[in-house]
Amino acid sequence: MDHAGRQTRLQKLLAVHRLGALLITHPANVHYLCGFTGSAGALVITETRAVFFTDGRYTEQARTEIHGPRTFVSRKSPLASAGHWLATDGQKMGLKAVGIEGEHLTVAEHIRLKEALPSGIRLRVAPPLVERARMVKDEDEIALLRAAAVLGASLFDVALRAIRPGVKENEVAAEMEYAARQGGAEGMSFETIVAAGPRSALPHGRASSAPIPPTGFVVCDFGVILAGYCSDMTRTVYVGSPGDQERRTYEAVREAQQAAVDAIRPGVGVAQIDRAARKILQRKGLGRHFSHSTGHGVGLEIHEAPRVAAGQTEELQLGMAITVEPGVYLPEVGGVRIEDLVVVTERGAEILAPASKELITI
Amino acid sequence: MDHAGRQTRLQKLLAVHRLGALLITHPANVHYLCGFTGSAGALVITETRAVFFTDGRYTEQARTEIHGPRTFVSRKSPLASAGHWLATDGQKMGLKAVGIEGEHLTVAEHIRLKEALPSGIRLRVAPPLVERARMVKDEDEIALLRAAAVLGASLFDVALRAIRPGVKENEVAAEMEYAARQGGAEGMSFETIVAAGPRSALPHGRASSAPIPPTGFVVCDFGVILAGYCSDMTRTVYVGSPGDQERRTYEAVREAQQAAVDAIRPGVGVAQIDRAARKILQRKGLGRHFSHSTGHGVGLEIHEAPRVAAGQTEELQLGMAITVEPGVYLPEVGGVRIEDLVVVTERGAEILAPASKELITI
Repeated sequence: MDHAGRQTRLQKLLAVHRLGALLITHPANVHYLCGFTGSAGALVITETRAVFFTDGRYTEQARTEIHGPRTFVSRKSPLASAGHWLATDGQKMGLKAVGIEGEHLTVAEHIRLKEALPSGIRLRVAPPLVERARMVKDEDEIALLRAAAVLGASLFDVALRAIRPGVKENEVAAEMEYAARQGGAEGMSFETIVAAGPRSALPHGRASSAPIPPTGFVVCDFGVILAGYCSDMTRTVYVGSPGDQERRTYEAVREAQQAAVDAIRPGVGVAQIDRAARKILQRKGLGRHFSHSTGHGVGLEIHEAPRVAAGQTEELQLGMAITVEPGVYLPEVGGVRIEDLVVVTERGAEILAPASKELITI
Repeated sequence: MDHAGRQTRLQKLLAVHRLGALLITHPANVHYLCGFTGSAGALVITETRAVFFTDGRYTEQARTEIHGPRTFVSRKSPLASAGHWLATDGQKMGLKAVGIEGEHLTVAEHIRLKEALPSGIRLRVAPPLVERARMVKDEDEIALLRAAAVLGASLFDVALRAIRPGVKENEVAAEMEYAARQGGAEGMSFETIVAAGPRSALPHGRASSAPIPPTGFVVCDFGVILAGYCSDMTRTVYVGSPGDQERRTYEAVREAQQAAVDAIRPGVGVAQIDRAARKILQRKGLGRHFSHSTGHGVGLEIHEAPRVAAGQTEELQLGMAITVEPGVYLPEVGGVRIEDLVVVTERGAEILAPASKELITI
């Protein structure tokens, strides 16, 4: 991974934003910039330096993972250590404005950090510079995302073998997660959703101890973390014999999902992708049952920029990785969601792990 | 669960802290107070009311889980909805000071919330009132913690069957996690640690694709989430034939862990529990290799108050649930950690899932 390049590009942005330094504590941002995968780390980037702070639990791990930034290990929290460094070395360097991650630093951390600094150093909420850099994936990252997506997609076959009336939702999830681990995943990228029958109408129906009913939709939404990168995929199957309304609902979601995928190309606004899916569902009278946004960025985190939603102004760029996942939830009937993870290429969307979207009945 | 009682007790604390209302957004705190288990919720507690906010994904779930507080579902984020309510209904009620969760609300959320409020309503960082309430578990909670601990402890038997030279660490973790799911767990309470051979010297050695070497310690640190409550347990085994130094190291940690468990009773300071373990290891010349604190509270979250560490001033109270987990990490030799989850009773520590701590060799 090009950690040095990422640090250099960030360093060049500091002057543009009139920042002497940027303090990064959000684990995914720290990971992105310097490779550290532990939970307790802080990174200070100045125009010429990168300094990393962690605690005693991570001495060995920092030695293995961190190349480049000088590392300080302390009994204090990484944030307190970084504050101390800013107040001593940073002050000597003449630092004035230090950027913080407003969306991640808590109010209490901000207060403690401020108290540790001399009056000459001011904290300022920085723009989400690292999140913006992370939106566009480089080749190494796309290779890792693809590997995660391919392993993730293989779990759907496991689900198909496990889903039977009477089997509990969390037994299906157990089989999928076991296969993920056997395939080398560090874990799941979010709590596996297996939502059957009436529970399929819950957009976030985490696998429960409820048995799969003799008939109805089963929404499976699942993802793995492999070598740090997340996958995300949803398929909906039908147990029993779907009626006309069920078939129509499924086909409407499939059409909406395809329309959104087809709309993807560099330069198109994310709101337009959302609109492409929503328009189809509205035309079929299902618009008000599509109660969430169309997608989100995926990378080191399962939810990252950009949000693919109405009102968002971001434009798609080459190398962005986003989900496309419209859904329809009918309290009496059940729910359907279909989701692919795609990368924006010059030729449009590339689905990272292509898999059939025909309605499968069990 | 006594959600109504928890809300009432919190309402009584508002006047003490001169707060007209408290805004709760930390998911575990929201869960504790009103039973909502989704990821996006905000709860406003005033002296006479409780109002809950969520978004469209959780309409059905809120209906099922929330009893008591009036629920508002909106397209906006729960925090934005709560801000709007405070600025309208709250202002009409004459609210002046609204407490926020300083350790959870981000700087950016704080700024957005402030902008949404009229000048008459002031935000103030509240003391961690919900975290303090959560430290002491009631009978229902202890029953759930015990069930989680018992399921958690059963995974060690699974690990013992899986650990063999040449088997990958994450294959062992896969077997444990599969058994957890089959036992009804919603998931693991943290990334399973299986750290073998030299990797056992990493206090946070998450299961990797490294094979278990022919000889050396294997640290297994694992926990489940069952019905919302976390378990946490560590055992260390030895593959092959341990030498004198290995046996001595293991016995030192076992003695330190037992000393800390024996020191537990209501009214004792947490720092004293930490000292009980540390003293034994120092006496054996291993003090500087015990690089983390002795334990932490466990409940709805895997890490919650109190911290069992030097410098902490909290006193143990009846019903607190804490881990006791000293460890020693020798870069050349490997690491040993032994951990139990205990509840503070009148007779001292009750280990929730007692299991042998003799050195097991494989």
